[in-house]
Amino acid sequence: MSLHDEIAQVIRNYHSIGWSPATSTNYSFKDEYNQVWVSKSGVDKSEFTNSHFIKINSKGEPIEEYVDIKPSAETLIHCFIYEMFPETRVILHSHGVNPVVISALEKSEVTFEGFEIQKGFDGQTSHLNQIRIPILDNSQEMSFFEKELVYKRAQLTNHCFIIRKHGTYAWGKSLFEAKRHLETLDYLCECKLKMIK
Amino acid sequence: MSLHDEIAQVIRNYHSIGWSPATSTNYSFKDEYNQVWVSKSGVDKSEFTNSHFIKINSKGEPIEEYVDIKPSAETLIHCFIYEMFPETRVILHSHGVNPVVISALEKSEVTFEGFEIQKGFDGQTSHLNQIRIPILDNSQEMSFFEKELVYKRAQLTNHCFIIRKHGTYAWGKSLFEAKRHLETLDYLCECKLKMIK
Amino acid sequence: MSLHDEIAQVIRNYHSIGWSPATSTNYSFKDEYNQVWVSKSGVDKSEFTNSHFIKINSKGEPIEEYVDIKPSAETLIHCFIYEMFPETRVILHSHGVNPVVISALEKSEVTFEGFEIQKGFDGQTSHLNQIRIPILDNSQEMSFFEKELVYKRAQLTNHCFIIRKHGTYAWGKSLFEAKRHLETLDYLCECKLKMIK
Amino acid sequence: MSLHDEIAQVIRNYHSIGWSPATSTNYSFKDEYNQVWVSKSGVDKSEFTNSHFIKINSKGEPIEEYVDIKPSAETLIHCFIYEMFPETRVILHSHGVNPVVISALEKSEVTFEGFEIQKGFDGQTSHLNQIRIPILDNSQEMSFFEKELVYKRAQLTNHCFIIRKHGTYAWGKSLFEAKRHLETLDYLCECKLKMIK
Repeated sequence: MSLHDEIAQVIRNYHSIGWSPATSTNYSFKDEYNQVWVSKSGVDKSEFTNSHFIKINSKGEPIEEYVDIKPSAETLIHCFIYEMFPETRVILHSHGVNPVVISALEKSEVTFEGFEIQKGFDGQTSHLNQIRIPILDNSQEMSFFEKELVYKRAQLTNHCFIIRKHGTYAWGKSLFEAKRHLETLDYLCECKLKMIK
Repeated sequence: MSLHDEIAQVIRNYHSIGWSPATSTNYSFKDEYNQVWVSKSGVDKSEFTNSHFIKINSKGEPIEEYVDIKPSAETLIHCFIYEMFPETRVILHSHGVNPVVISALEKSEVTFEGFEIQKGFDGQTSHLNQIRIPILDNSQEMSFFEKELVYKRAQLTNHCFIIRKHGTYAWGKSLFEAKRHLETLDYLCECKLKMIK
Repeated sequence: MSLHDEIAQVIRNYHSIGWSPATSTNYSFKDEYNQVWVSKSGVDKSEFTNSHFIKINSKGEPIEEYVDIKPSAETLIHCFIYEMFPETRVILHSHGVNPVVISALEKSEVTFEGFEIQKGFDGQTSHLNQIRIPILDNSQEMSFFEKELVYKRAQLTNHCFIIRKHGTYAWGKSLFEAKRHLETLDYLCECKLKMIK
Repeated sequence: MSLHDEIAQVIRNYHSIGWSPATSTNYSFKDEYNQVWVSKSGVDKSEFTNSHFIKINSKGEPIEEYVDIKPSAETLIHCFIYEMFPETRVILHSHGVNPVVISALEKSEVTFEGFEIQKGFDGQTSHLNQIRIPILDNSQEMSFFEKELVYKRAQLTNHCFIIRKHGTYAWGKSLFEAKRHLETLDYLCECKLKMIK
């Protein structure tokens, strides 16, 4: 199965658990030629297939036969992540409710401590560390996110962040790793939310 | 796939996520000849098929070969919506728990602010707006809803409303849009409920 | 599809939404010859098939080729219901979490008022009525339930009751109706729980 | 179907209900020759198959053709359980959210009383008993768990325990029994959590 197909299937699975209501969320990956593909805008994710990915250049513009197709409005966030973390090959975005609600209740970061699942983040080897995940304010301006991500680079060591009342971005050196990071963050937020509410 | 089939499948999907317990909810659409079809009364939505739609006239009465079949008791609400918003082609009704609980806790409207998903409502272009969704009291009299909807017309700009301790109506110029409106409202209510409880 | 098959499928569906953890719950029906069949003891409900029903007599004893098979420990509750409400043809029992938690928080009954879904109970025609569902204490003695059910007969007009920290019984003149009653009660308990917690 | 296949299917089912996010959890069983098999490390449980089990010796070391494959990091916990409770044939581990959150809120044990489902634990015959399930602190050192389990042996009569902010272990004389124990504990924690929050 090609990476196009594998990620399309992950996208449909995530939709089935409520992570992409109402055509929301977006996804991207680098193929074996380092070409970046990003999901097109406005697709119902229950119906997402391998044909819904668009080739883009490093400025987030559709190229070749895709030049007239509208990529996700948040395509530039994907570009910033690939630029800041060049090893990244897959980026996943979720609107899962748990991180969204946590981001409405917390300030500029959410912390976790003592959870075994923290080891789901590449680089974490013990539950004893305190994990800090940055929460960025939301904006319709992509340049705002570029500045924020550069500014908070040192806090992005767990390969993910939350945008307030919006959703989660997670990335990895493979689909396998990006999934693990996204699911780890959602699970931690679910635990925290059930503990404090 | 015909619109009959497409909506029947959406209805079965919504049942599987708990939005239509115990034969509740109803649905309608306009076909390519502007004929309105509405779901018949009392069908278990896990078993809903394209044959469960009934042709009705603008007064909500079954016509032609359907004249002896009982349409949904709330058929007139569908008629009012088509009359008030003539561009509407699909109307979806859900008993999803989140809006129902919110409607029991709030007064005559529920407000949302700062959620990215607000852009799921046609016409909304930023998360910064404050969204106000009307909550109508429940009634067994359809004439009550007619008056209420006319009275609250100016607040129906987000293509949906909630009936207190009953459920949600959402509509659109297509099935795609109606689904997006319904799912956006449910998701917003889920976030709000988890934030306040 | 035979009633054996239909109910077996409903049982598997209810398992998939978490209503029968750990081999719990039991079910019965009357066939076209008024023979009562009840589910056997200790079956994982994800694997329940039409062959897991046992013929019993009116005392709840297995008969004919089923004489050596152990029926559900709660078989007599089914017998009491068939005796008290002779029109009953299907009885469903659920361990769904919502009524179980409500029964731990309330005293001898749980009340609902103003919910549209109340009309899911046969005989209810408006959301305006106050619905009172009895909560029986739990017991390992079936004779206790016999006395309780007789004593609370006047409160069983909505075709269901809850056993405290145990689960829900609902019945009907058909599978369709029994399902509607069970799902209505679970939904009402879910709404109430989310409103008070 | 072989036990390899049966348990692999249970593992995929448990993943689908959220019990093994982000490659977490591990599983083992004894085959008909009393050979212990344990799940390998780092597999996404949605894709777990019968080929992901590894033969180990009583010290938890992979043997024969599996000698170079990494077993789960928690393999020794499985070995301790087989040694302490020699009748055990299947051990299941879950990261289900409910026990994890309960373990963050309670001290060295969680108690349950009056729930019918308590009878899901082998040896329990009435809901009237008070059930006490030990909560062990988490550690990256397997020797810590060995000491803890020996020390708390008398409290392991319900065939399960929780590791704080980590997950649940449950075991049984068969897959059927181990599943029943795991599902009973998760259900009890879900009820308790909804009652106290």
